[in-house]
Amino acid sequence: MNKSNRRKFITSAAVLGAGTVAAMPATPEKKKYLAHHVFFWLKNPDSTEDRDKLVEGVKTLAKIETIQEIHVGVLASTEKRDVVDTSWQVSELMFFNDLAGQATYQNHPVHLDFVKNYSHLWAKVVVYDAMEV
Amino acid sequence: MNKSNRRKFITSAAVLGAGTVAAMPATPEKKKYLAHHVFFWLKNPDSTEDRDKLVEGVKTLAKIETIQEIHVGVLASTEKRDVVDTSWQVSELMFFNDLAGQATYQNHPVHLDFVKNYSHLWAKVVVYDAMEV
Repeated sequence: MNKSNRRKFITSAAVLGAGTVAAMPATPEKKKYLAHHVFFWLKNPDSTEDRDKLVEGVKTLAKIETIQEIHVGVLASTEKRDVVDTSWQVSELMFFNDLAGQATYQNHPVHLDFVKNYSHLWAKVVVYDAMEV
Repeated sequence: MNKSNRRKFITSAAVLGAGTVAAMPATPEKKKYLAHHVFFWLKNPDSTEDRDKLVEGVKTLAKIETIQEIHVGVLASTEKRDVVDTSWQVSELMFFNDLAGQATYQNHPVHLDFVKNYSHLWAKVVVYDAMEV
């Protein structure tokens, strides 16, 4: 290998090396979230109007800055099995970075307004807070 | 503006234009998922070993190709409130594109193996299937 070719080889290897590092990080660790799962049972479980109103209410929470991701749902028509609870009407799923983010959300004026304006719609609410592992 | 500068201006404007289109799509519609929320109550609720074994089992499900996203969790140490259920030990959250994706998962050999190999660990399981709206 002459001097010029050797230099080209080194440069190419360096570029290739940089590309490889970018494509395959040494530690492809996925971000782990605190998942806040909430299920609502309406006072009028058969009222599509109340369901849609609560969905609208839950969506106002998206403004809270510590929420990293929000998914608002209604009962899916999956296969009925003994283990599947189909008695609820509206779900709310949020991802927070940590416990502090979730605590900020609980006391946030937008959340307090939501409770004030929409809690008359539900009879029961159940929360599951999970830390991703 | 001379001819050379005019050409540069047009090129720059085109590049800027392309960038603007990419950054602000006309319809920023977010993908809506079917969220499959599962909560497990262990036969030995105080056994960290059983909890970790079930976590390991749930993570094997990630291989199922219709799962778009999976989050495995354990009870988070959020504030204790009446509405928060803290009696479970392991959670599994999956996103599917649609009902068919969830049905494929239910009957998938990897899922059936999981039930065969790990169901002796849990006393109760509750599932909530939510269609994002």
